[in-house]
Amino acid sequence: MALTHYPVINRNGQLISSAVTNLDLHDLSRSAKTYGVRTFYVVTPLLDQKGLIEKIVFHWTNGIGSKLNPSRRKALELIKIKTSLDEVNEDILKECKIPPKTVVTCARDKYSNFTFSEFYKKLQTENPYLLIFGTAWGLSEELMLKADHVLEPVMGSADYNHLSVRSASAVILDRLLGERKE
Amino acid sequence: MALTHYPVINRNGQLISSAVTNLDLHDLSRSAKTYGVRTFYVVTPLLDQKGLIEKIVFHWTNGIGSKLNPSRRKALELIKIKTSLDEVNEDILKECKIPPKTVVTCARDKYSNFTFSEFYKKLQTENPYLLIFGTAWGLSEELMLKADHVLEPVMGSADYNHLSVRSASAVILDRLLGERKE
Repeated sequence: MALTHYPVINRNGQLISSAVTNLDLHDLSRSAKTYGVRTFYVVTPLLDQKGLIEKIVFHWTNGIGSKLNPSRRKALELIKIKTSLDEVNEDILKECKIPPKTVVTCARDKYSNFTFSEFYKKLQTENPYLLIFGTAWGLSEELMLKADHVLEPVMGSADYNHLSVRSASAVILDRLLGERKE
Repeated sequence: MALTHYPVINRNGQLISSAVTNLDLHDLSRSAKTYGVRTFYVVTPLLDQKGLIEKIVFHWTNGIGSKLNPSRRKALELIKIKTSLDEVNEDILKECKIPPKTVVTCARDKYSNFTFSEFYKKLQTENPYLLIFGTAWGLSEELMLKADHVLEPVMGSADYNHLSVRSASAVILDRLLGERKE
């Protein structure tokens, strides 16, 4: 899966590169590890932001944090930092020998063409898939139109769906990969 | 639902009062609003921490934040700040005229005696329920033994379940209250 900081939009619908949120790295890597995701790509084209992510990841995978909290180390070890989603696709192609199908997520229903149930069924037989989460006010329209699939939005029981990316990503992984007792 | 900062344990199993995390207030109130939770209680016995929560909540419900981001306002309006879980129970008794059944959450399986499916069925007919999340390394043993039910842990597909409280609470609400297409 990937968390991307570009191309995303701001509250006015303008294309931006968003800033990295420390807790996104922790929460999404912990969820990725819990649900058996193979790699967690963090994507930003900004050099200073890449440096910041590298510092955080190093602290928890090789620095003091890795000794203080070994379970956190295992989670953050899933992170690979990339400059663009094209680089992510290339990396998966190198690892898996075939290009991934891309699935983007969006809180709005406008572009949605792929249900959780359809995605779940595909995952049982087809691989690899790249699941892409956006930051700020969500992924750009262009990126959504280019993806193989747009996943249906997470809806709760109310007429309001403003989940954080930390919460939404966990719910999405749980719907696709979670186990529960009867 | 409630997020409590006492009584919880630290990494060494000692009883502590944990510090408030700003993003917990945002993420859990956004999830609560999305899944139709009636009230989100934030519990701490520490006066300075209560003051901090009040400042944050005021900013987003009455201050500049409420104008910049009205959907955030609607989420944080669900927050009630309380000194103890006893105060939470009293508030629910006052609002609903009957005391709530309490359900605590835990990442470990040791005390679990209530499945998601059982809880889901109960929610269709019985009310009110108070769902309690812990911070730090989790709720104290004493609190778990006192609760009416201990919910089964969220398990992913892997032998690792170290979700953040922001992620775990969203997954739990989704399993109990989420809607999805076929």
